[in-house]
Amino acid sequence: MDESELFTLDLLNIKDPSFLKSMSTTELEALSEEIRSFLIENLSKTGGHIGPNLGVVELTIALHKCFESPKDKFLWDVGHQSYVHKILTGRAKEFGTLRQYKGLCGFPKRNESEHDVWETGHSSTSLSAAMGMAIARDLKKEKSYIVPVIGDGALTGGMALEALNHIGAEKKNIIVILNDNEMSIAPNVGALHNVLGRLRTAGKYQWVKDELEYLLKKIPAVGGRLAATAERIKDTLKYLFVSGMFFEELGFTYLGPVDGHSYEDLFENLQYAKKTEGPVLLHVLTKKGKGYHPAETDTVGTWHGTGPYKIETGDFVKPTAIGPAWSKLVSETVRKLAREDERIVAITPAMPVGSKLEGFASEFPDRMYDVGIAEQHAATVAAGLATQNMKPFLAIYSTFLQRAYDQVVHDICRQNLNVFIGVDRAGLVGADGETHQGVFDISFLRSLPNMVLMMPKDENEGQHMVNTAIKYNDGPISMRFPRGNGIGVPLDEDLKTIPIGSWEVLKDGEDACILTFGTTIQMALDAATQLEETGLSIKVVNARFIKPLDEPMLHDLLGQEMPILTIEEAILQGGFGSAVLEFAHENNYHNAKINRMGIPDQFIEHGSVSKLLEEIGMTTENVVKLLTSMIPQKQKRA
Amino acid sequence: MDESELFTLDLLNIKDPSFLKSMSTTELEALSEEIRSFLIENLSKTGGHIGPNLGVVELTIALHKCFESPKDKFLWDVGHQSYVHKILTGRAKEFGTLRQYKGLCGFPKRNESEHDVWETGHSSTSLSAAMGMAIARDLKKEKSYIVPVIGDGALTGGMALEALNHIGAEKKNIIVILNDNEMSIAPNVGALHNVLGRLRTAGKYQWVKDELEYLLKKIPAVGGRLAATAERIKDTLKYLFVSGMFFEELGFTYLGPVDGHSYEDLFENLQYAKKTEGPVLLHVLTKKGKGYHPAETDTVGTWHGTGPYKIETGDFVKPTAIGPAWSKLVSETVRKLAREDERIVAITPAMPVGSKLEGFASEFPDRMYDVGIAEQHAATVAAGLATQNMKPFLAIYSTFLQRAYDQVVHDICRQNLNVFIGVDRAGLVGADGETHQGVFDISFLRSLPNMVLMMPKDENEGQHMVNTAIKYNDGPISMRFPRGNGIGVPLDEDLKTIPIGSWEVLKDGEDACILTFGTTIQMALDAATQLEETGLSIKVVNARFIKPLDEPMLHDLLGQEMPILTIEEAILQGGFGSAVLEFAHENNYHNAKINRMGIPDQFIEHGSVSKLLEEIGMTTENVVKLLTSMIPQKQKRA
Repeated sequence: MDESELFTLDLLNIKDPSFLKSMSTTELEALSEEIRSFLIENLSKTGGHIGPNLGVVELTIALHKCFESPKDKFLWDVGHQSYVHKILTGRAKEFGTLRQYKGLCGFPKRNESEHDVWETGHSSTSLSAAMGMAIARDLKKEKSYIVPVIGDGALTGGMALEALNHIGAEKKNIIVILNDNEMSIAPNVGALHNVLGRLRTAGKYQWVKDELEYLLKKIPAVGGRLAATAERIKDTLKYLFVSGMFFEELGFTYLGPVDGHSYEDLFENLQYAKKTEGPVLLHVLTKKGKGYHPAETDTVGTWHGTGPYKIETGDFVKPTAIGPAWSKLVSETVRKLAREDERIVAITPAMPVGSKLEGFASEFPDRMYDVGIAEQHAATVAAGLATQNMKPFLAIYSTFLQRAYDQVVHDICRQNLNVFIGVDRAGLVGADGETHQGVFDISFLRSLPNMVLMMPKDENEGQHMVNTAIKYNDGPISMRFPRGNGIGVPLDEDLKTIPIGSWEVLKDGEDACILTFGTTIQMALDAATQLEETGLSIKVVNARFIKPLDEPMLHDLLGQEMPILTIEEAILQGGFGSAVLEFAHENNYHNAKINRMGIPDQFIEHGSVSKLLEEIGMTTENVVKLLTSMIPQKQKRA
Repeated sequence: MDESELFTLDLLNIKDPSFLKSMSTTELEALSEEIRSFLIENLSKTGGHIGPNLGVVELTIALHKCFESPKDKFLWDVGHQSYVHKILTGRAKEFGTLRQYKGLCGFPKRNESEHDVWETGHSSTSLSAAMGMAIARDLKKEKSYIVPVIGDGALTGGMALEALNHIGAEKKNIIVILNDNEMSIAPNVGALHNVLGRLRTAGKYQWVKDELEYLLKKIPAVGGRLAATAERIKDTLKYLFVSGMFFEELGFTYLGPVDGHSYEDLFENLQYAKKTEGPVLLHVLTKKGKGYHPAETDTVGTWHGTGPYKIETGDFVKPTAIGPAWSKLVSETVRKLAREDERIVAITPAMPVGSKLEGFASEFPDRMYDVGIAEQHAATVAAGLATQNMKPFLAIYSTFLQRAYDQVVHDICRQNLNVFIGVDRAGLVGADGETHQGVFDISFLRSLPNMVLMMPKDENEGQHMVNTAIKYNDGPISMRFPRGNGIGVPLDEDLKTIPIGSWEVLKDGEDACILTFGTTIQMALDAATQLEETGLSIKVVNARFIKPLDEPMLHDLLGQEMPILTIEEAILQGGFGSAVLEFAHENNYHNAKINRMGIPDQFIEHGSVSKLLEEIGMTTENVVKLLTSMIPQKQKRA
């Protein structure tokens, strides 16, 4: 019988990881290969985070063999490396639905399995959560191992460092697995990266240590003082030569580095970690993409997360996009402007590829800073630059900007500094799901004094808005833009500036008005067209400035008592529609008929954006219905 | 002539720090004493951050003598240690107005002086800002020193660690002054603290180093291999023996520790730092409160920031408070509940004194965690605890909760975990000013799915709300409460639970209704009483749940078409009033007459809360005016 066929059957039939206990290393190695084939095959159809998962096959199997999940707790930091864990805990058969509506989530999810004890998506949370779990365990006098698995990139996030500091001081029994692949999402940056680099070459320290011991033995008896010193030196050197000085200084027992693809090494070190009192950091070296040539040889992060691909060639099956990628449009416009304005500096927290800053970086290597997974630092570096009359462009995803909220409030808005925040992946993002939906930024940015917030209707307006932002000198300005591509409109050669707070009438009408912006404009226009056929004339406004509002236009609309429907791909509480309500009542238009459409008060799971919008009722059909209900009968009959 | 009198005149006449250049160490020492007397004397009347400033007298003078501000840039982390800097830059005469309305700010303020290049208030921002400034300097090819001054406590904040990592890797010329007083606001915690402790005793490393060199010299020639090893060992040991291994690993040149009260040591090391290429960390040991016995002998943080005091005795001039301190009421109620419910664990990010958790800590030392200045970590530790069916109480100031926004969104609300967040210092806080006003929490918490948000009308309702929060099992729940003391109502013996989302009618009425909560209730009642005298009957509702709203009551009010005025001590955009507007329009009460009173779209500076409220128009008089204008004339005449 062909062994790989056996495992094919097995993967789908796995109920829980207990079957691993009796397996030999040889069998585990065959299982690893089977899981790799399974991942390569399945993800070629669904897309997903192929690179990180191929890198942790042996590590995940070893963890499940050495520990007892769910009594022992694995916390997958960021969480996109949890596919192998999902397979081993009975979810292989669901991989056909990965990251699809109502399908398997791409991250750990507590309602999927009792083995998912902590949900992730954003980086660097696992150590803090592990600390909380360890406190609970010890208070309850329970026995269990708590094992966060964190990448070298995630370790640079401030909260992970806060947690290392606290765990080290409290001496809690936590086994931190540092999954070091020398590259997180993008090639890693920062001094910690250099620390890890020195540890990787630790072999030489071992040699130095041997030499030293030989040398110390050769010293003739020189009396008590020197002998004591020699002892102390050996003691002190121990820290240096176990080579995890940085972590040892923080109070951890450092183990490693270990070959993360060798079962023998993993078992030995995991068993040792289990026996060690206090916090342990086990440094595991893995190879992202291991076992699939295109992913294994990737050096920039292209294979971190992908769409479908052809297995044989590694070519991506690209959906036909009409317009340019939004991230690229924005970054390339900033690049163009940077040729004229040498004050422009681009900053990204670990997303040079996602934010399409490669072109900018190659043309202006001194003016582009990838600060690693460190959103707070990124925002305040931008603020610091702005105090010196520079023009920082902070390229950041909406959902990750949440991590820098206080820096936006306290450092950028409060000091009213000229920082341009490119709020990428704003609105629903689809397959990444609830941790990544960019739906809170309007509420949390609009409430801040001094902030200008805008969103373009298409890529041409987008490039003019980037120019507007760079030319703006009165404080912070943010432009939100969606995941994905533009709609294919021609791009003007010359860049214009758009008057701050000005809206644009896209279609005139008299019976009601839709105020919307960005991705939901087409839906508004479609609804207006449909209603036209029933004899209703709907005005559609590109409300491209979310803050400040176009006050003259609002006075005009409200003065006419025109029913208003606001539409936004963002959470409704405190959103754009609320801004319109606030304006109306502040100006005593108390009989204004205003309805709001947007994302209701719930977290939105993964699925295609169109499916999600349908699910929450943001459809042309509902726009038509809502508007019809808002327009007085007599008018409708007219 | 008495030397101290000379300097008294001088302090008030100082225009800029240039006068220091020609002063001898003896003269500087006299100046130090003069500044200490000035601070002790002035702050005894105004209150302020006496401890931190007495600790940095010599350090600040040394910095201004060795560098050229404002060409060279000092960034005062947190910023409450900037008084000496303010005196040396021409602001001594304004100390009588310290932290008062339109007076001298307690933190660096760019519009006060060109020497204040970076504004602070929240912790751990200075290194990131310094990095931004260093990038700008180098791109402009300018020459200047950039000198952030950061405390050992602030160094544990995640963003400071992110910044160390980045600065170390980029090798920018930045001179970080680590102002190590072994105690930030509270006694310091964390592994980093232990690292610093080892460095403080670094003398012994020096001795080991001497011994080793002696020993290496004694080794007979043992051929090339051993000699090379010995060299390498010396090289490698260098890192260990300069004793700042932790910082050296991160890419800094470590200098110190230096006696921060010795001009000689400070000058020598600052001059060395100026000559060093790449980032430097100069470790300066200072004594908080130095020169004033009560502050110098403080071990818990009582003298970190104070109100007025009697110089001779160190007794505080306490304002007569009627009710208990809000923080104490909340923490002591949690403590009482913790006797019955052993799942309760309290967490504070470095504010055990401010949050009045001393009693809880002494009774339940295993169930109270001060995690240091690490708000992100604190929030996610709470989340981790909640996954294990514990009942975490996160005690945190409104303004510092901003630092944990993403953790509240992503870890607590998204996983719908039973975390009780005590949002302290909510609303205006007064003297600390714009960095500390707790005015954004309603907007940023109300927009999050699963969050319950409430605020009590008095301390008795406050204790019942704490009980309600602890008993609540359906997800996160937050209670905001103000700085200062309760109003002196009797406290019920037995704790009750308040139905979630229930409001309370405090005074019935028919012509209009005020919806408000917390500190603004008295103003509403006063206005209603005044209007009663003019024949108008005003309903006043204690809208104690900001989320969820009391929907039946709102339907009732809106159904009656009663004019509604909402009042909140919070930013208006996206606030409580907006929630009422949203509800009204969502339920098609389109002719609802709703006005909102609250904090306008601007940052609110320092001053007494009553003065600030007056300044922004939140007065009984204006409530009367606004309500009068909202009530139709015919009713008014009735």
